[in-house]
Amino acid sequence: MQITSLKLVTIIAERILEDRLIREVVGLGAKGYTITDARGQGSRGVRANEWEGPDIRMELLVSAEVADRIMAHVADTYFEYYALIAFVQDADVARGDKYV
Amino acid sequence: MQITSLKLVTIIAERILEDRLIREVVGLGAKGYTITDARGQGSRGVRANEWEGPDIRMELLVSAEVADRIMAHVADTYFEYYALIAFVQDADVARGDKYV
Amino acid sequence: MQITSLKLVTIIAERILEDRLIREVVGLGAKGYTITDARGQGSRGVRANEWEGPDIRMELLVSAEVADRIMAHVADTYFEYYALIAFVQDADVARGDKYV
Repeated sequence: MQITSLKLVTIIAERILEDRLIREVVGLGAKGYTITDARGQGSRGVRANEWEGPDIRMELLVSAEVADRIMAHVADTYFEYYALIAFVQDADVARGDKYV
Repeated sequence: MQITSLKLVTIIAERILEDRLIREVVGLGAKGYTITDARGQGSRGVRANEWEGPDIRMELLVSAEVADRIMAHVADTYFEYYALIAFVQDADVARGDKYV
Repeated sequence: MQITSLKLVTIIAERILEDRLIREVVGLGAKGYTITDARGQGSRGVRANEWEGPDIRMELLVSAEVADRIMAHVADTYFEYYALIAFVQDADVARGDKYV
């Protein structure tokens, strides 16, 4: 079994952004994505504190380079007007060559 | 783009605890939370092995200090009577200053 | 509070495999599991690129040894015919002795 060290990028965003985010992360090099429906709340400036709307939680297994590109893109594109969360973690992936 | 090393705390608990857990983690310093609905089973002593009920999976991006506080709180408060799971991981977070 | 360093194994698979995967990971040493419903897409060879079906996202907290066993099993059993994703991460777990 072959294991590859990759990056797991998690993006939590309002559900209305789903289609747009998918197009963008694929355009930036992600070979696939997994989405779960979520809900949440956060004092993140843009979205009113008392509002709790439907969110998506998108996960991407990508190379470190693609992870950097996606993080920079969502920061530049969404942070001013959207309550988007984005974080990166290490992950040891089976059949990891399929993701880079 | 600014990246901050934070802790991702994940708590998996019976759904009936959702409102109470939200109040408590916010009281302990979490600035927001993300919840997904889950289901599961575990031989964790309290909950009968054959029972599979609705769970929540709560995620929190917090400082190491707040993570320690939350982990200690859920251990002290819930582990005797509830089948709660709690774990901590590293996460590199965009716009991380919003979370501490 | 006791914290144990364990492995978090995440498996993303077509929903039709849920019962079979549960039996197999428990047979390989997992003491419990958490499942969330998911959806996704990936250019992973087997599943047609344009198809987006219901997936499950299964999480397991296990020892490093059980993690290796589960990763080898899913690679050997599913990778030829199924678009299954499997990855391993570190996790610091409260009451971690219950999982090994």
